[in-house]
Amino acid sequence: MFYNMAGIYRYRVEPQDVDFTQRITLAALGHYILRTAGEDADRSGFGVRELNGHNCSWVLSRMAVELERQPERYEPFDIQTWVCEYGRLMTTRNFLLLDDRGECFGAAVTHWAMIDLDSRQPMDLRQLEGAAASLVDREPPIDRPRKVAAVEADDVVYRRVVYSDIDFNRHVNSMKYLEWMVDRLPLEILGQHDGVRFDINYLHEGKYGQSLAIACRAEAQEWRFDVKDEAGVSLCRASIRFR
Amino acid sequence: MFYNMAGIYRYRVEPQDVDFTQRITLAALGHYILRTAGEDADRSGFGVRELNGHNCSWVLSRMAVELERQPERYEPFDIQTWVCEYGRLMTTRNFLLLDDRGECFGAAVTHWAMIDLDSRQPMDLRQLEGAAASLVDREPPIDRPRKVAAVEADDVVYRRVVYSDIDFNRHVNSMKYLEWMVDRLPLEILGQHDGVRFDINYLHEGKYGQSLAIACRAEAQEWRFDVKDEAGVSLCRASIRFR
Repeated sequence: MFYNMAGIYRYRVEPQDVDFTQRITLAALGHYILRTAGEDADRSGFGVRELNGHNCSWVLSRMAVELERQPERYEPFDIQTWVCEYGRLMTTRNFLLLDDRGECFGAAVTHWAMIDLDSRQPMDLRQLEGAAASLVDREPPIDRPRKVAAVEADDVVYRRVVYSDIDFNRHVNSMKYLEWMVDRLPLEILGQHDGVRFDINYLHEGKYGQSLAIACRAEAQEWRFDVKDEAGVSLCRASIRFR
Repeated sequence: MFYNMAGIYRYRVEPQDVDFTQRITLAALGHYILRTAGEDADRSGFGVRELNGHNCSWVLSRMAVELERQPERYEPFDIQTWVCEYGRLMTTRNFLLLDDRGECFGAAVTHWAMIDLDSRQPMDLRQLEGAAASLVDREPPIDRPRKVAAVEADDVVYRRVVYSDIDFNRHVNSMKYLEWMVDRLPLEILGQHDGVRFDINYLHEGKYGQSLAIACRAEAQEWRFDVKDEAGVSLCRASIRFR
């Protein structure tokens, strides 16, 4: 593997990141991945703070994460990240997760769109001057995020969007959807599995005060989820598979 | 003020810590305070990892926090901590919160009991050999945590304890109660206030799968909360006052 040209960011699993097994939760790890994306974009001059000056921003569209294991409390780890392609409407940012011995315990691929903050419409990424120079010629480490089909749910719970769910736009935080989904899984499977892959599709923004329906369907080793607003519009879908 | 002898721990407000105003939430700041308590206890030889070897552990009994302001995203801050007294059943640990210019923006006082992990009964802290040597002769920086009275609630919501709420004992995380309470406050008051004090009393442990009732009562500038289990037993009470 060639680590040059990818940004490297060091973290540590903090006490508030772990679950009852003392290992980092999927949502907490997802936060570190998104934080890495934010810091690396800042470093290359395409961060949200820079873009906001031009009245636009990045929006996470899809995310796939594969993990061999979830690091333990106080364990240090590195996240490497690089952008490998800019399409007209979507860019692909990749991640490798490495433990203290340099062993890879996971990887992630994300797709991002850039939106105009007034119209909330996607912008043409080919306008992004200098972006091509920051590309790294290295393929995604795992399959790109898959499209998750609508879920015919037999099992639905409802949840109102509250203060601790929202970001500075008063929209639901990306990782909150994952947290709500994982909270619906049996504790046993979260306590012992030999690896996991999840694919999340972000379709529309959930807003403060909305009552959301979280539908769940289990098939073999795959759990599928669909979060809908009061009008029945899907905001977020995901598939989680355990080994 | 004399900073010598108190342990000092440096943090930074991370993106996942902030609310829609881009400032750290009360629960996230509470996590840093508790993490500081844990690290400082470890450093002085009375940490949970050491105690677990003797089949006992610290349990948070009460906590009071006063804040002039909530630091912003990416803002570095220090937490100073010291233990000022050991009673028979309770010890008092204090905290000062300082910004990058050394200005104090908040303070906290916590009471802890030590329990036997089998019987879950409190232990006599005078048995704790060498503890007196780690005491710092410096009073708590704010009033000690107050006892919060039962709440005659006119407004109750229910919440099942899920995976992301629990710690390694499968008990509700201390800061989750605070999060649920703050989620019931009007967004406006959380967006603009000139300071806050909260007092939390931890009475019993909430457990995975329980359906908890979160009662709320507002009187003038004070909100009071009472979280009860299915049998009507109070698990956690708190008072939050804004200026």
